[in-house]
Amino acid sequence: SRAVEQRRREECCPHAEDTTTLSIPNYTQHVTPGVAPDLLPAKNGEEQTMQFLFEIVDILTTYVRKTFDRSTKVLDFHHPHQLLEGMEGFNLELSDQPESLEQILVDCRDTLKYGVRTGHPRFFNQLSTGLDIIGLAGEWLTSTANTNMFTYEIAPVFVLMEQLTLKKMREIVGWPEGEGDGIFSPGGAISNMYSVMIARYKYFPEVKTKGMAAAPRLVLFTSEHSHYSIKKASAALGFGTENLILLKTDERGRVIPADLEAKVIDAKQKGYVPMFVNATGGSTVYGAFDPINEIADICEKYNMWLHVDGAWGGGLLMSRKHRHKLNGIERANSVTWNPHKMMGVPLQCSAILVRERGVLQGCNSMCAGYLFQPDKQYDISYDTGDKAIQCGRHVDIFKFWLMWKAKGTVGFEQHIDKCLDLSAYLYNKIKTREGYQMVFEGEPQHTNVCFWYLPLSLRSLPDGQERRERLHKVAPKIKALMMECGTTMVGYQPQGTKVNFFRMVISNPAATRSDIDFLIDEIERLGYDL
Amino acid sequence: SRAVEQRRREECCPHAEDTTTLSIPNYTQHVTPGVAPDLLPAKNGEEQTMQFLFEIVDILTTYVRKTFDRSTKVLDFHHPHQLLEGMEGFNLELSDQPESLEQILVDCRDTLKYGVRTGHPRFFNQLSTGLDIIGLAGEWLTSTANTNMFTYEIAPVFVLMEQLTLKKMREIVGWPEGEGDGIFSPGGAISNMYSVMIARYKYFPEVKTKGMAAAPRLVLFTSEHSHYSIKKASAALGFGTENLILLKTDERGRVIPADLEAKVIDAKQKGYVPMFVNATGGSTVYGAFDPINEIADICEKYNMWLHVDGAWGGGLLMSRKHRHKLNGIERANSVTWNPHKMMGVPLQCSAILVRERGVLQGCNSMCAGYLFQPDKQYDISYDTGDKAIQCGRHVDIFKFWLMWKAKGTVGFEQHIDKCLDLSAYLYNKIKTREGYQMVFEGEPQHTNVCFWYLPLSLRSLPDGQERRERLHKVAPKIKALMMECGTTMVGYQPQGTKVNFFRMVISNPAATRSDIDFLIDEIERLGYDL
Repeated sequence: SRAVEQRRREECCPHAEDTTTLSIPNYTQHVTPGVAPDLLPAKNGEEQTMQFLFEIVDILTTYVRKTFDRSTKVLDFHHPHQLLEGMEGFNLELSDQPESLEQILVDCRDTLKYGVRTGHPRFFNQLSTGLDIIGLAGEWLTSTANTNMFTYEIAPVFVLMEQLTLKKMREIVGWPEGEGDGIFSPGGAISNMYSVMIARYKYFPEVKTKGMAAAPRLVLFTSEHSHYSIKKASAALGFGTENLILLKTDERGRVIPADLEAKVIDAKQKGYVPMFVNATGGSTVYGAFDPINEIADICEKYNMWLHVDGAWGGGLLMSRKHRHKLNGIERANSVTWNPHKMMGVPLQCSAILVRERGVLQGCNSMCAGYLFQPDKQYDISYDTGDKAIQCGRHVDIFKFWLMWKAKGTVGFEQHIDKCLDLSAYLYNKIKTREGYQMVFEGEPQHTNVCFWYLPLSLRSLPDGQERRERLHKVAPKIKALMMECGTTMVGYQPQGTKVNFFRMVISNPAATRSDIDFLIDEIERLGYDL
Repeated sequence: SRAVEQRRREECCPHAEDTTTLSIPNYTQHVTPGVAPDLLPAKNGEEQTMQFLFEIVDILTTYVRKTFDRSTKVLDFHHPHQLLEGMEGFNLELSDQPESLEQILVDCRDTLKYGVRTGHPRFFNQLSTGLDIIGLAGEWLTSTANTNMFTYEIAPVFVLMEQLTLKKMREIVGWPEGEGDGIFSPGGAISNMYSVMIARYKYFPEVKTKGMAAAPRLVLFTSEHSHYSIKKASAALGFGTENLILLKTDERGRVIPADLEAKVIDAKQKGYVPMFVNATGGSTVYGAFDPINEIADICEKYNMWLHVDGAWGGGLLMSRKHRHKLNGIERANSVTWNPHKMMGVPLQCSAILVRERGVLQGCNSMCAGYLFQPDKQYDISYDTGDKAIQCGRHVDIFKFWLMWKAKGTVGFEQHIDKCLDLSAYLYNKIKTREGYQMVFEGEPQHTNVCFWYLPLSLRSLPDGQERRERLHKVAPKIKALMMECGTTMVGYQPQGTKVNFFRMVISNPAATRSDIDFLIDEIERLGYDL
């Protein structure tokens, strides 16, 4: 059946080189097979250590080269059961006895072989795509330094880099002198969770000690198009998802401010306390930007915390051409901004920025004596760990700092502008093209281009239940074929009452117009006859 | 003043080589200075990319070699203001214009130069120490793959590795067939937070939708010696820190079960609902193991969730000699276990394990359509993202999986046994040595050895306020000198009514008896005359 599968793939993708044929360098020259690892800190382990690391780097640089090579596949798809059963000497099971270094190198090669090349110019599946070489170097260095952000003591350089970078980000948001506070967290969902926690601490600080019983019934607001992390935060932090009110949007997916105000008034009439509003700066599916200024007016009027979830759209602040889409963000009390999305920084890199100094610390500090000794020899205001809900914290800053150094602010701007140009190219190409239907009218605000592709058999079908049901199955089917072919990857999902559609997003610096053309051709090749 | 400082250091540490004299390879041969980066995906960028990555690897492997070389310093200490003012061409500030690749390489070298060598054989400052070469290779590969754990679709191999490894860990905990659930999270604090969330969901699932108002007043219990993350979780999740009851411990820092039962009864009499007990398997400061079986009896009797925080001590489960210290852990409902601590896995790598299947998913799932489409072509039970409080999730599994492959279970066991042997060596060396006083009697349960060092001037002083006050200042002073000398690093803190003492911990695979001897000599050299 593997042979059958192989044949099916070859038929399906005549132009995709099979990545399984990568040549394997003759590492056995260097690493003695079957011998237990004798790496550092073992005595006399230095030579073998260096040799082993160079072998690894050889595997990795080969992978990097292939990643940018359009004649390679994006992925070599296998089902879970196939990988679990074991692929030609690649066995995922762990055992009591050690493997040879030789086998470790094979395992590394195989891990990459059966993975997904997220840096490939035709990988468009997530908001985070691309493989920035400077960022990659930054991550390699970070791993080698292997330290922890909680104290200046063991991460002096990284702690200062974080501080300076957060300040720079706050300046770009538009807070005077870049004042405020912030921290890098393990992703946008956690950053958004921080915003809700901090807002609660600001309005009801006694919840920290007495729990939610010390507060009245608190209500949060967010768009029906917003990221699900706001809902996760409502559940986790003890508000309850029913107390998160979803706001109506216009047909472009932007919050309707009047709906917010009506729902605030309604909540107050019920005796609840409206506390927090999340405005999305670049929604996940439509790429919509909520009207922040109008929302800020309502927040001021009713004394609510304004958070802007710019996890996806925050990067547009770097572009003089596009930053107006976030106008009003300087009025926010807190902002989530993930450099690992639109700015191409390797995963993970997400910042929560807070306008008022002191609340982040106040909200989370527990003053653990074993970490944050007041009698250290240096200025302990640089020990940032007590601001976090984490204790240990991964160094996410260095790769970002290094990329900023290497590109300059202007380099990020160029990247953002280029991605938005590419999405405009895609939009203009398909908006009137036979077989395509846009999910919403007008040029997208972000790089999200949402569309249905209609196989020939559906084009003459009148709108109605049958057409909807059949159309709902088209995107999943094309996606499955794409993945089996390994030629490209793009996301799809339903949204509200809309059946499955493609959501194309561009954040990959390697993508060009030819890749957009390729995607369209590929969708048509795979979907025309469905 | 820099010259003065330099002189003071030289006097203070005649045996420590100055790391600032590292030779800098002549990278300008390869990278054209002053020219804007022309790396991939730029056209014809391949050669320069490879060259740049090899330069980086040269910097990193040099650093790795020096890390294990005892003639280098652990750190080259500078105050925050010194680093912020800029050190000889190392400027932390970000600018609008790009830097040359040449400067980027210098920045990388300087970042390492002014950092802390956490893998150095004499770095004992945290629970996470050491630099495992296989783990490092794993992290380099992880960065290169740059993907996200939320779906099988884009992380097929890593998702399966996580699943298999979690199952193996549950087997080692002792749950039948390794059944249950779990996830890798960004550190022990978040893992502990998960445990509280899951417990709440198990007993009061309606809190997810209705908030804490749907539950009675809930009470949590943990040792006064437990990690502060339990307190952080109480605050964040809406319980309130006052509803976290601290349990008394014996003089070794182990929970007194009778105190737990008394406090449970007291809470019930007040009308509160005791819900959750955290037992610590290896406390942060004393390395104490709470008596899990006796605590489990009480949890069963009063229908409370039992969590074991084995962030630090969980690694001992790998040792046939030491795992008895966690006897009863198989009765826990959830377990935190950080391979990045005692098992030497690079940061971050923390697992939350749950005995009952389904509650983790039930607690956190929000079913976001854009990520977790039900109509994918593969078995979507492998999409683990909806179990997490995160959305995007860093790949923490690969380095750990690779280390397990390379060492086998027996390799971890040997490492653990060796570290505990070393701490016994330290304990036996100082327990009766002139000038040392142990913080608690008896051989430590974990590798934590807690002691005061008394300068000569304090030894004849009678116990009392003056002695206490002076002793409180000794550890900070010695630590500051150590850091300025850069020769070694070890932690200190007060605990309860006990004034500052050293907490020595050993998890570093590079440490030997000679390093323990060195530490003792160094403390005496720096502290004798204080």
